[in-house]
Amino acid sequence: MSIAAPEYAFATPFQTPPSAPIRSLMPYAMRPGTVSLAGGYPAQELFDIEGLTTASNQVLGRLGACLQYSNIDGQASLRHELARLSAARGLICDPDTELVVTGGSQQGMALLARVMLQPGDTAIIESPAFPNSVNALRYTGATVHTVPSGPDGIDVDALDELAARVKPKMVCVVASFSNPCGATISRARRLRLLELAIKHRFLIVEDDPYGELRFAGETVPPIAALAEGEARHWAVYISSMSKTMAPALRIGWLVAPPEVRRRCVGAKSADDMANSAWVQEVVAQYLANDRYAVHVPRIRAAYGARCDAMAQALERELAGRVIFKKPEGGMFFWARLSGEIDATRLLPYAIEHEVVYVPGKAFYPDPEQADLHAMRMSFATMDEERIALGIVRLGRALDACAANAPVSISLAA
Amino acid sequence: MSIAAPEYAFATPFQTPPSAPIRSLMPYAMRPGTVSLAGGYPAQELFDIEGLTTASNQVLGRLGACLQYSNIDGQASLRHELARLSAARGLICDPDTELVVTGGSQQGMALLARVMLQPGDTAIIESPAFPNSVNALRYTGATVHTVPSGPDGIDVDALDELAARVKPKMVCVVASFSNPCGATISRARRLRLLELAIKHRFLIVEDDPYGELRFAGETVPPIAALAEGEARHWAVYISSMSKTMAPALRIGWLVAPPEVRRRCVGAKSADDMANSAWVQEVVAQYLANDRYAVHVPRIRAAYGARCDAMAQALERELAGRVIFKKPEGGMFFWARLSGEIDATRLLPYAIEHEVVYVPGKAFYPDPEQADLHAMRMSFATMDEERIALGIVRLGRALDACAANAPVSISLAA
Repeated sequence: MSIAAPEYAFATPFQTPPSAPIRSLMPYAMRPGTVSLAGGYPAQELFDIEGLTTASNQVLGRLGACLQYSNIDGQASLRHELARLSAARGLICDPDTELVVTGGSQQGMALLARVMLQPGDTAIIESPAFPNSVNALRYTGATVHTVPSGPDGIDVDALDELAARVKPKMVCVVASFSNPCGATISRARRLRLLELAIKHRFLIVEDDPYGELRFAGETVPPIAALAEGEARHWAVYISSMSKTMAPALRIGWLVAPPEVRRRCVGAKSADDMANSAWVQEVVAQYLANDRYAVHVPRIRAAYGARCDAMAQALERELAGRVIFKKPEGGMFFWARLSGEIDATRLLPYAIEHEVVYVPGKAFYPDPEQADLHAMRMSFATMDEERIALGIVRLGRALDACAANAPVSISLAA
Repeated sequence: MSIAAPEYAFATPFQTPPSAPIRSLMPYAMRPGTVSLAGGYPAQELFDIEGLTTASNQVLGRLGACLQYSNIDGQASLRHELARLSAARGLICDPDTELVVTGGSQQGMALLARVMLQPGDTAIIESPAFPNSVNALRYTGATVHTVPSGPDGIDVDALDELAARVKPKMVCVVASFSNPCGATISRARRLRLLELAIKHRFLIVEDDPYGELRFAGETVPPIAALAEGEARHWAVYISSMSKTMAPALRIGWLVAPPEVRRRCVGAKSADDMANSAWVQEVVAQYLANDRYAVHVPRIRAAYGARCDAMAQALERELAGRVIFKKPEGGMFFWARLSGEIDATRLLPYAIEHEVVYVPGKAFYPDPEQADLHAMRMSFATMDEERIALGIVRLGRALDACAANAPVSISLAA
């Protein structure tokens, strides 16, 4: 006979087992025939398998040299390449004192959170935001406050006011084509964020997984690239290869002032000791082969066409019923249902009509603040025809929902 | 003109920048001609490059299928193989509810520490111990207490007494061929640890990177494998591929009761989202190819011969001057200088005589408790002749030190 598990005394942030509202939609999204606009995944058919295979084979030829324990902060070859890539984005940094290779951008966020935050501290994140980023902050035991964000990014005046009140140690934004909003913060607002960082003495942390996926409008440099003088001490940049090369590499990087970077390396030594030197060498080789510069424009072009298709379908099928601002890059539409129907009520109808999206509610750190009419729709993983089909189905689901038709799907709240 | 960096308000555990006393020896250890007994690295020439290349090529053939985002808890294929491997060690577990793939055993320790500990909590670790394990506990802000360990492992009576007093949430040991002690905890003591875990309601966490590297004596099952009834709820097992396959894979695993495991998966989602699915598939393929079972005995045989060579050289060259208990597996000798000379005083002489070891002091969480005469010497990375040469040189260094000969090397304290 098995003995019941005891009540474990977990640390406060882990007392409630984690819920994953987005992952819980996946079984529906994976149904054959269903059009999934719900994923946060990049397009699999665009992965540069040939280029990765070439780089991998080059590294296999010297495999013995990259199987041992290695530098916590990353392979010198990869740090060099990532500093070069950052410089191409406008951010000049020293690969030895300012850059760390991380396990995706997620680990960059987690390391920073840990070296800065403890219970009693505060951090600020824009709302809505990517839930794993919010969790990286919350799991330190710190209090996380939110500032509203929208199609133009974080509300800088609200941030100024809140920061004066709660004294955050770090403020986190996705400045380009954010998840979920698709929002981009203007150059003027980025400069304002740097001013506020100096004024309130917080680290302004830009997570930039999507910045290179711009298919419209003008490039805006990363926030840290705009930092001059004192602002340089407060600007942190995080990026990732997940959306441009492949998520499964789990390679990201962090650019931070040396004193901050040094602690992040210390934290990483106790977290996982290093990323796989093997994979790092594959990524460095891929970059050194100059495949990246050839490959990223392909993704950009495909996503641009898919974004157009989604915008056109929404205008054609759902004009007036769904409101949105077309993003200039990235993977996501943030759209609002304009009538009385909210995104959670619509969802079972959508699933029944073989289309899935994520209700915007899932992205609000504080559910009380959630815009219940919002929904996140990804255009990244399907061709134009399928996107259009998804939107047609969404229209039918809206009709059925408006008519209070019976629905067989029942979802947890 | 550059502006001086501000005083950042780091979280308490990161206020002092990390020091790395072992890493600081590496420049000396790397000098051409020097015999390094200082490393904690496995033998590079024993890596199964052929087997890894074969597995890697098999995975390259289906690369497209393992580049996407993947399960936080690990690839199903690898979890299955690791459950099989754990079972071969005597530990039966469910790959879906009890096992998580981690970034080396280090991440297993870090995840557990985070889900259990926060400031105000306590944990216990044996002393001496691997510094990164101590840091994983300390970086949560919890207080870390120590229980003396020696050639027979942790002092269980001292643990019983301390646990009653400080109420730890977790107690961490390396039960087989520990780093740095080379110690193995007997079956009787392992059972006692399980009793104490139930009595004091702590998780008994066994980090087992070396267990399969037994070259003498009788196998003792992992602590969690001995757990029955209520004890099953308190036993956690962590292991790693770093010492048997290669460190740069950064693949380890954690076996924990389902409620604990679930939180660890939640913590991992905010830490790095997953290990590289690509690398996981390579490791799973390697295991499925049955290379592991063929390869590990090779390491065991080589390390056994090297261990013998070190024991013989110590007896031949330094009888009475250095006291040790020969380990039955793993990579490390823990030896004591028997005279007045301590290991820190000897070190510059050793370096001058082209041999390096790590003073035992580096492994004490509380430097006040350090045995200043202890030293850790690895026999893993050199052939028998070179090990003997290193010990001869150590003897000469001891002579020079005893004679108070002038020495040109000066080391930070």
